[in-house]
Amino acid sequence: MSTPLSEQSSPVIDFWFDFGSNYSYLSVMRIEAQAALHQVKVRWQPFLLGPVFRALGYETSPFVLQKEKGAYVWQDMERQCRKYALPWRRPSVFPRRALLPLRVAMLGADEPWMGEFCRDVMRLNFAQDREIDSPKAVSEVLMQRGLPAQRIIADALADANKLKLREQTERARAKGIFGAPTFFVGAEMFWGNDRLEDALAWAAGRPLTGN
Amino acid sequence: MSTPLSEQSSPVIDFWFDFGSNYSYLSVMRIEAQAALHQVKVRWQPFLLGPVFRALGYETSPFVLQKEKGAYVWQDMERQCRKYALPWRRPSVFPRRALLPLRVAMLGADEPWMGEFCRDVMRLNFAQDREIDSPKAVSEVLMQRGLPAQRIIADALADANKLKLREQTERARAKGIFGAPTFFVGAEMFWGNDRLEDALAWAAGRPLTGN
Repeated sequence: MSTPLSEQSSPVIDFWFDFGSNYSYLSVMRIEAQAALHQVKVRWQPFLLGPVFRALGYETSPFVLQKEKGAYVWQDMERQCRKYALPWRRPSVFPRRALLPLRVAMLGADEPWMGEFCRDVMRLNFAQDREIDSPKAVSEVLMQRGLPAQRIIADALADANKLKLREQTERARAKGIFGAPTFFVGAEMFWGNDRLEDALAWAAGRPLTGN
Repeated sequence: MSTPLSEQSSPVIDFWFDFGSNYSYLSVMRIEAQAALHQVKVRWQPFLLGPVFRALGYETSPFVLQKEKGAYVWQDMERQCRKYALPWRRPSVFPRRALLPLRVAMLGADEPWMGEFCRDVMRLNFAQDREIDSPKAVSEVLMQRGLPAQRIIADALADANKLKLREQTERARAKGIFGAPTFFVGAEMFWGNDRLEDALAWAAGRPLTGN
């Protein structure tokens, strides 16, 4: 992806996420507002977390494979959502397949509707406990925003766009990504919603601040 | 452990840690100052992370077993230490065995020297890259603080205290602990240095605050 000259001076954060990932939910909901505070541009990088996990030897989310950590994660999510004033309902299916909405996100990554689309999909999954991988669910989200759902879904399902998402997922593996959300500022990697503020400060050239 | 009546009204945080754990380093260095700000009492709960990992099916730290996560962790530690203004040198041996200092910590958990002792041991491991599991290293730390090293080490090596640490480690497993540091406020579990402030706010009865 080549960056237009006009954008090269403004700091950029690359935001790697999957709609099935609960900690990605927190970051999808928060990133645009936080990035604006730091005057950092968000580059949305949707990818398929499943193949990345499988390449690392996990057949599904570590939160499913590790009983103790899994039990903890739902407590933690409830507290974190309260902390960030986000709606929360524990999904009855986890992790949810998100192939179609990720293909739409791949297509729309540079579109002005990208942020709203991603937040709407995430709310379906983590606030309303609804499936997100059907044409029906995705077109509802798009139509709600006044977008041409049928055309967007057709474009998302075109071979070129399917390939783009597969290549993007390969790129995630090549970059050493092992979970989501993951942020990159140049080559500097930050893992987890807990590092969003650090990554933004890093992008803006400000010192990281802790207590 | 029974709590004296005079302390029952003051909020308490239970702090579970192992001297070999790098994220425990961050919390050991920070917890007393942070807890004082929130007027919360720290109850030190040293335990052996190794047997907990083995019970979960890991033969060593996940940071060693998972190459990608392992590579990331050292970058993250460098940034986190800068963020918290803590000294940092990547240990040449990881995870370091910490049986003797943990036995001393078990013995000294309620002593006034506990905080300083723990910080000194952690600095040896994560700022000076030195072994921490020898009588020489542990007695140096104790003597530096003007403490009767020989007697403390002898007491730490008494059967009753060894048993206490084993039982404590069993208790960690029974509580669902799967990593370190872990904080408890009553039955509410918080995992990781990133949750220290949340756990303290919870203990103090204040809302968790995020961006």
